[in-house]
Amino acid sequence: MTDDVVPSLDGFTRRDWQSEETNGTVRFAMVGMGWWTREQAIPAVEASDFCETTTVVSGSAQKVAAATDLADSIEHGITYEEFHDGVAEDAYDAVYVVTPNGAHLPYVETAADLGKAVLCEKPLEASVERAERLVAACDDVAVPLMVAYRMQTEPAVRRARELVDAGAIGDPVLVHGHMSQRLLDEVVPDPNQWRLDPELSGGATVMDIGLYPLNTARFVLDADPVQVRARATVESEPFDAVGDEHVSFGVDFDDGTLAACTASQSAAQSSFLRVTGTEGEVALDPAFYNRQERRFRLSIGSQSVDYDFDRVNQMTEEFDYFAYCLLTGTDPYPDGDHALVDMRTMKAIYAAAERGGDVAVEAV
Amino acid sequence: MTDDVVPSLDGFTRRDWQSEETNGTVRFAMVGMGWWTREQAIPAVEASDFCETTTVVSGSAQKVAAATDLADSIEHGITYEEFHDGVAEDAYDAVYVVTPNGAHLPYVETAADLGKAVLCEKPLEASVERAERLVAACDDVAVPLMVAYRMQTEPAVRRARELVDAGAIGDPVLVHGHMSQRLLDEVVPDPNQWRLDPELSGGATVMDIGLYPLNTARFVLDADPVQVRARATVESEPFDAVGDEHVSFGVDFDDGTLAACTASQSAAQSSFLRVTGTEGEVALDPAFYNRQERRFRLSIGSQSVDYDFDRVNQMTEEFDYFAYCLLTGTDPYPDGDHALVDMRTMKAIYAAAERGGDVAVEAV
Repeated sequence: MTDDVVPSLDGFTRRDWQSEETNGTVRFAMVGMGWWTREQAIPAVEASDFCETTTVVSGSAQKVAAATDLADSIEHGITYEEFHDGVAEDAYDAVYVVTPNGAHLPYVETAADLGKAVLCEKPLEASVERAERLVAACDDVAVPLMVAYRMQTEPAVRRARELVDAGAIGDPVLVHGHMSQRLLDEVVPDPNQWRLDPELSGGATVMDIGLYPLNTARFVLDADPVQVRARATVESEPFDAVGDEHVSFGVDFDDGTLAACTASQSAAQSSFLRVTGTEGEVALDPAFYNRQERRFRLSIGSQSVDYDFDRVNQMTEEFDYFAYCLLTGTDPYPDGDHALVDMRTMKAIYAAAERGGDVAVEAV
Repeated sequence: MTDDVVPSLDGFTRRDWQSEETNGTVRFAMVGMGWWTREQAIPAVEASDFCETTTVVSGSAQKVAAATDLADSIEHGITYEEFHDGVAEDAYDAVYVVTPNGAHLPYVETAADLGKAVLCEKPLEASVERAERLVAACDDVAVPLMVAYRMQTEPAVRRARELVDAGAIGDPVLVHGHMSQRLLDEVVPDPNQWRLDPELSGGATVMDIGLYPLNTARFVLDADPVQVRARATVESEPFDAVGDEHVSFGVDFDDGTLAACTASQSAAQSSFLRVTGTEGEVALDPAFYNRQERRFRLSIGSQSVDYDFDRVNQMTEEFDYFAYCLLTGTDPYPDGDHALVDMRTMKAIYAAAERGGDVAVEAV
């Protein structure tokens, strides 16, 4: 490591977004009690500085009862119907929506009606049209909407963005991004799960994990997609209805950078993002799994440095950042308009795969 | 490292292709005296077991005179005209053709007429049609033709191929490959060089370096491309005529594997190849530069091993392998038909970039 050429990145995991003192706590209603909420979100909130879970919302009284013990702070367990009726609305300030993609809209609409801030899981919805209605529902009553791109509060990703912005690798030229997992063998071993139902998911692989290299590339480059090309294939029967088990897609960004991305729901768990510039390269490898190590390499000319840093809980960072924005009256980011660009890009990716040709991303 | 799961790969740099005793030495005429021949090929042959350079061939008496001192074994320095006239033909057994792409054909034709074995640099020629004539010229008189894909005799690549073939990563699913360098700033600082002349090169970036991820993926997967999609862009004026400075291309292989590849002649030097399978992953990173370190990582499930191995000179391996084949009467590989598949694939990549749509690779 030569400090002359490669910067030392002091305070790698610092919260660059946190500058003011805050008072109080943001109380959350968790809407949707799948494994992600139970095993990732609720523990992350317990470990947070500015958040607590007071309310859990699920489909049946039985599921609700099973979820109320997940944290001491949980005061209310209510059904989806009760949520829509405003039951226990005084017990929470914000709503985390983590239902199947195609069911985000009604819960966000109710949260907006109740005047609650919204943290909505990505992708925003199962179609561009429903995602637009979701964003409008929040805009119409001016409730804050943040989309839960946890990579955007991951320190390794924020440091990569800062380095690219500062010109550390020159001008970005090419990006590679990848994410894969064994969905049915290791993550959610249920062939009838909602991710494999096109009405509920909008697509299995691009929508669920292809979104990670796509959105993280956007964030690190600070650029937006203008055109895509793609190929999607299916090898296993449970993916027949959605049509995308393995995907490869190219993305042309408005700054001229070309990205080559892949994703698979039926390959060994792996993830990386690599940005090659005119003068150097920054690589996160592994990159995208909260439950896996992250590694960060910066190369400039012939010198290369692997940074050691403490892994943080991406979900705790995300919840604390969102709560900090609410407590300080700051607009949270990524917002609905940012997430709509991904929705339009993924629509273009599916269209390109279907058509076998380049497709322009619809402008807003 | 757990030997139970991840194999130990004894003898990483072993020459798996070498099994018999041999007698004698293959004497080479080097045709084309650019920096690659002077700085890479002639020293590599000096370090070899089975080869020597006896003859150098270049465009002018002056260039020839400057090259005859490059090795003690060099007995003859002749011009291209003298080569075509058969001057000093008794002094060499084989010809290494390393002229600009679009000038390979006449030297290979002469070598074939003279009954000399041919090691021809990749890509075979500047167009599919000329490459087909080149292969036919050797086939017609049955002289051995090998194409100089030095990655195919690189031990790290051969070990990767063996592991994939043995099922170590399950079934291959996705491949990422990349190669970039700063051609004009660091490699050949001449805006009038032949690589930037479409007649002589056939293309600057896909043909010169995009070929590395393409061909190495083919070799590691033991599969051939059937369809491609691509985008090529130009930012700097010297690349206007060729039309490809930065490229991103997707390749669909006949075994179902999808590859996402990029290359640039105007980005920081970098190269990697990564094959993700259903059970694991194998990665070469860096991968493709003879003058740069190679690293090899194998991941199976959650275990990952970086193999330490001594870097070999890829060019020495390549020359010794070719000479070993000649001395033992074995057909060398990769042959002309193998290289023609790359020529047809690159033609399809340029067509896809031009058309903005998927293009099928022409069958043989």
